[in-house]
Amino acid sequence: MAGSTIGKHFQITTWGESHGKGIGVVINGCPAGLPLDEADIQKFLDRRKPGQSRYATARKEGDKAEILSGVFKGRTTGTPVSLVIFNQDQRSRDYGDIATYYRPGHADYTFDEKYGFRDYRGGGRSSGRETAGRVAAGAVAVKILNQLGISFLTYSRAIGPVSVPLAAEDLITAASQHTNGSFADIRKRILSDPLYMPDSISSQKAQEYLEDCLRQQDSAGGIVEGIITGVPAGIGEPVFDKLDANLAKAMFSIGAVKGFEIGDGFAAASAKGSQNNDAMRMEHGKASFTTNHAGGILGGISNGAPIIFRTAFKPTPSIASTQQTVNNAQEDITIAIHGRHDPIIVPRAVVVVECMAALTVLDLILENTGAKMENLETLY
Amino acid sequence: MAGSTIGKHFQITTWGESHGKGIGVVINGCPAGLPLDEADIQKFLDRRKPGQSRYATARKEGDKAEILSGVFKGRTTGTPVSLVIFNQDQRSRDYGDIATYYRPGHADYTFDEKYGFRDYRGGGRSSGRETAGRVAAGAVAVKILNQLGISFLTYSRAIGPVSVPLAAEDLITAASQHTNGSFADIRKRILSDPLYMPDSISSQKAQEYLEDCLRQQDSAGGIVEGIITGVPAGIGEPVFDKLDANLAKAMFSIGAVKGFEIGDGFAAASAKGSQNNDAMRMEHGKASFTTNHAGGILGGISNGAPIIFRTAFKPTPSIASTQQTVNNAQEDITIAIHGRHDPIIVPRAVVVVECMAALTVLDLILENTGAKMENLETLY
Amino acid sequence: MAGSTIGKHFQITTWGESHGKGIGVVINGCPAGLPLDEADIQKFLDRRKPGQSRYATARKEGDKAEILSGVFKGRTTGTPVSLVIFNQDQRSRDYGDIATYYRPGHADYTFDEKYGFRDYRGGGRSSGRETAGRVAAGAVAVKILNQLGISFLTYSRAIGPVSVPLAAEDLITAASQHTNGSFADIRKRILSDPLYMPDSISSQKAQEYLEDCLRQQDSAGGIVEGIITGVPAGIGEPVFDKLDANLAKAMFSIGAVKGFEIGDGFAAASAKGSQNNDAMRMEHGKASFTTNHAGGILGGISNGAPIIFRTAFKPTPSIASTQQTVNNAQEDITIAIHGRHDPIIVPRAVVVVECMAALTVLDLILENTGAKMENLETLY
Amino acid sequence: MAGSTIGKHFQITTWGESHGKGIGVVINGCPAGLPLDEADIQKFLDRRKPGQSRYATARKEGDKAEILSGVFKGRTTGTPVSLVIFNQDQRSRDYGDIATYYRPGHADYTFDEKYGFRDYRGGGRSSGRETAGRVAAGAVAVKILNQLGISFLTYSRAIGPVSVPLAAEDLITAASQHTNGSFADIRKRILSDPLYMPDSISSQKAQEYLEDCLRQQDSAGGIVEGIITGVPAGIGEPVFDKLDANLAKAMFSIGAVKGFEIGDGFAAASAKGSQNNDAMRMEHGKASFTTNHAGGILGGISNGAPIIFRTAFKPTPSIASTQQTVNNAQEDITIAIHGRHDPIIVPRAVVVVECMAALTVLDLILENTGAKMENLETLY
Repeated sequence: MAGSTIGKHFQITTWGESHGKGIGVVINGCPAGLPLDEADIQKFLDRRKPGQSRYATARKEGDKAEILSGVFKGRTTGTPVSLVIFNQDQRSRDYGDIATYYRPGHADYTFDEKYGFRDYRGGGRSSGRETAGRVAAGAVAVKILNQLGISFLTYSRAIGPVSVPLAAEDLITAASQHTNGSFADIRKRILSDPLYMPDSISSQKAQEYLEDCLRQQDSAGGIVEGIITGVPAGIGEPVFDKLDANLAKAMFSIGAVKGFEIGDGFAAASAKGSQNNDAMRMEHGKASFTTNHAGGILGGISNGAPIIFRTAFKPTPSIASTQQTVNNAQEDITIAIHGRHDPIIVPRAVVVVECMAALTVLDLILENTGAKMENLETLY
Repeated sequence: MAGSTIGKHFQITTWGESHGKGIGVVINGCPAGLPLDEADIQKFLDRRKPGQSRYATARKEGDKAEILSGVFKGRTTGTPVSLVIFNQDQRSRDYGDIATYYRPGHADYTFDEKYGFRDYRGGGRSSGRETAGRVAAGAVAVKILNQLGISFLTYSRAIGPVSVPLAAEDLITAASQHTNGSFADIRKRILSDPLYMPDSISSQKAQEYLEDCLRQQDSAGGIVEGIITGVPAGIGEPVFDKLDANLAKAMFSIGAVKGFEIGDGFAAASAKGSQNNDAMRMEHGKASFTTNHAGGILGGISNGAPIIFRTAFKPTPSIASTQQTVNNAQEDITIAIHGRHDPIIVPRAVVVVECMAALTVLDLILENTGAKMENLETLY
Repeated sequence: MAGSTIGKHFQITTWGESHGKGIGVVINGCPAGLPLDEADIQKFLDRRKPGQSRYATARKEGDKAEILSGVFKGRTTGTPVSLVIFNQDQRSRDYGDIATYYRPGHADYTFDEKYGFRDYRGGGRSSGRETAGRVAAGAVAVKILNQLGISFLTYSRAIGPVSVPLAAEDLITAASQHTNGSFADIRKRILSDPLYMPDSISSQKAQEYLEDCLRQQDSAGGIVEGIITGVPAGIGEPVFDKLDANLAKAMFSIGAVKGFEIGDGFAAASAKGSQNNDAMRMEHGKASFTTNHAGGILGGISNGAPIIFRTAFKPTPSIASTQQTVNNAQEDITIAIHGRHDPIIVPRAVVVVECMAALTVLDLILENTGAKMENLETLY
Repeated sequence: MAGSTIGKHFQITTWGESHGKGIGVVINGCPAGLPLDEADIQKFLDRRKPGQSRYATARKEGDKAEILSGVFKGRTTGTPVSLVIFNQDQRSRDYGDIATYYRPGHADYTFDEKYGFRDYRGGGRSSGRETAGRVAAGAVAVKILNQLGISFLTYSRAIGPVSVPLAAEDLITAASQHTNGSFADIRKRILSDPLYMPDSISSQKAQEYLEDCLRQQDSAGGIVEGIITGVPAGIGEPVFDKLDANLAKAMFSIGAVKGFEIGDGFAAASAKGSQNNDAMRMEHGKASFTTNHAGGILGGISNGAPIIFRTAFKPTPSIASTQQTVNNAQEDITIAIHGRHDPIIVPRAVVVVECMAALTVLDLILENTGAKMENLETLY
């Protein structure tokens, strides 16, 4: 049952329901001495805030993060960092029949089967709102990793059938040519796009596709791609806590995720070994890879090349058109879901993907601190 | 560092290197009272045994499992079950230069970076041979799950570019029509196929493709598909230990895996909500789903429908053609890998996928035993 | 670092510092369907509330527990239960030199050595106030265990050199004779005693001893004894997660604890086997024990007899008399600690001991649900 | 159920039954680069070997440790170290009625209640023989800690009622005066004593006491004391994974342990604060403690002073005199246990205590590697 905790070192536990008193997270294992304030967290929460485009719900959730513990005089103390986002709007509502029937594509039925009943208000615990806690904790992880020279670039690779024509490698190459490897420029472009896409032509097409979905009372899915640079070679634990294994779990722990791949991913399955192997050569006195089909991970351990991965999200299950389902009186019924719902969750999920990736990488960096006797001898 | 353990209840720890004294696994948390002998385990190990077709290495590893503890008078006692497969051939060999250079697509470089040095004999710990321990433990998990009415069907869905035209749903439908839902017949067909494919025409094409790879001194990847039936609704722990999240991790913990998807997977990302949602209706007095785009999991919890997933494997990195790499003297070199290597590992990986899936499902079933007060009141 | 979590199933994570915004706990793994409201928790918190006798600090902390998540319509939902106690008095104060020196017997020096600095306000994370979170979670555990027929009786066995002359067995015998095994009467007497002692003559002597300590600007320690009845035989996991091993850890996780023993404890070390072994005989058709030197645990597993244990607390380290210490400028100094401090913490620690015991027992009961194949077959 | 694993970083899993094929342990998380061979382990196993004095069983178990994995070219590789001790004598025996009845003071009854049946051969999993695996793993932990400047001195403090008159502090003082803080001389004396006592007069008295026990067909318990020097300040994790909390658990996980105390332990409960607090002063430019009532731990974190603790063992439950018990046909019976049994297990337990202490300290040292941002910045 204790499924709301992830991580072994930088361990987070999220709590809260969509329409309860609040949403929160406790970080158990944050290293001491990190400068941290609420603004560090808020800028990540703002990236998943609803109401920013016509493709996200018009609700004004606010989502103000508050630090309740673990920070003293502007620095983390090494003790648990408790973060909370109180729900501002808790007036009692009319939830209609939602308690009695099972919305297709939602977890209503499975929660009832598992626990005997469920908090049906706004999806309760299975609401996407739970991810606000992850993002709050992830903001701290990203800040730590930035201090170690590790950067993230995350964006919508595809919205429905509209896919960005650029490969991750193209963005890395562009960054290396124009901004000395920094993603600052491209990140700025992405954050200003209503769909968090790196390419305005694709974004325009995707917006047209979403207009079409809205007209049809339908919804869309998509793919989020992430790039992580600066991870030193050696991170990830054979044989079960591989870096890619833990990333895969982290991604699939996000609601609506149906697929995950690293490097060439599924395409590697139909390639030949001679195409898929990344050759090595010395460059600037350092062993490096001439290509990156592996996506930066070999044998579950980072190889020093950029880590590249993709996460597939299904279409938002809440749609306004009529659907066939059953209720808890075991009757066949038809329903139509009204109210404010995102026709697509992918853009708001981009920061969730980034945060889950950061939590995973940081946790394995902390795991690696004792890998060698010489590390212990250095520290003690 | 402690990355060789997986599972919280039916917890396994594997140990051993490819060319060391042996390979083993300790199952910590096996329920008491299960009838178990070495033959139960051997039949699973035999499915990953090399030398069974011309597409697998000609080595005769034997791989005889021995139970060292935890079984008394033919039944598990509830204490750790230690299983070992001693390596029969431990004569010292000439490993040539392999210690000094990094084979493309292998974990040689990343192990060296992580630990400072590595056991280079046959890939050491990163060898596929490590999975023998997983299969031994998985055989026990499958036996327990079978007793609870849960069945597995696992097979090669694609070999290189050759994909089986049947969908998982077709196999489930066929089984329900011909063998009352039992996979016995189709499983028999699969186990008799040299590539563990469910369809002989595809298998024939795939074999031709592999012949081509062999001629070109190249290798192939592929996709393994798994079907799990009989899992009751309610298994999987929100929000991080979701059934699909733990399956994803389990799959990515297998070497050479580059992608994982559940249900419609990546295809769901370009579908619309109205297409992707699975409607519900009452059937035989039970809530059920009219389609299964979700692959049997909603909100990370099993919904009672068959669980369907796919795992993508990259091509075997050991190829006989010349490759460019570096050595630990930081020199650019070219190498050609000789010796016995599988041109494809997918068929031998089928049973590994099945076993990792079984370990995951069993662990979450054990996790769920305390989900409700009424469970506790039933047991105490 | 992630040391603020305990338990595997009914897993709790506490957070908060003495003089921060609040103190809290997240219960991750609470079974669904338990009736729960804030009053259930408040009555436990009130037992550790300061200001109840002249031997506890005169501060009025209030300590009102608030449930933030995991309860819906009066019952637990199976999702995390987040409990918080906001600090009512957060005005900024003058902490004087406390930041610069190390109080003898406190964790000031060790926190500084570990983390580089510390939240020095009121002891920060190492304050006894952290246990409020444990008590809040423990109240939930006790409620669940009560539903399974398990009861707790916990009290001050010794205050300084004044020890209660009754043995735990005497209290059990008295309960079985007068109240049919229920501890209701004796518990009432204990809760009405200012020192939570079961015997008024001892309490009177102990109060005189404490008056003496107060006059001398000194402090006292003591021993808390706990009795747990109704635990079925079979709880506890060989070989490391023994019931007594986990109890020992739980007790030593409470600040100021210096000793723990079970059954005859240290006295058993000087006894002979013929004296210490508990003989068995059939009673009312059930195997039972004629004595209970073992304290209800054999081989780390409950044997069905009452579990009896003792936990030793050192004297409160904050004393008003002058002490020699050092400061962080590496100077020898003398200090005198002023302000409101308990001359003894044992009475307030009684409920903390009870709660840590309940958390331990419940966690191992949940662990035991999958011990036998027949349990699984019953539930699935 | 998964109770055979302890430790989070240097994580060990033991397996095996007394009269099964063997006893073993897997170390999951051993840092890479430690020189290690079987002799390192054997010298620890020899300290718990039976048949060394007339107070230990005359069986010749041999107990030869074999390294099956994780060591290559004489150094640990960072992958699991699997250690096994095969049982040399596995001929089938006549176990008489032992399967049917419950020996007082043993875990026979509780195993049956928990698992439904048990491996009754020689105590099965609950035999003291299981600790051989712990000792094998502990030998590796001690070797690592020695490299970090940490030393252990462990000995019998009391045998039955015969207690060594020297305090731990006396031994530390003697060592500092005669051998520059090294325990080499005193350790040599202890290892040559048949009861592992540091004082020959006490040992002589204890031997007379044991002769008396033997004549009376009875058995004795005792107390093991441990001293750990060289642990830097800062080890141990508030609030649950305190160094003393984890030590307490480790000790109580050893069969027959009934009590544990640290520093002044139970005696602290009757002391006053002014007596129990350890004053600080600068010494050789370093903050240090003028006394060590705390036993080297404050707030669950090491303070740099020697760690001193005591563990109480009950008398061996197997005694030859007649005892009253029940059998699994629910009949009252009397039994007399024959065969080879130690009249005391304390001397053989000394090395087990030392090894469990080493495993605990090492695990928390590894946990502490990521406590501060500056540690991460040093390593990455």
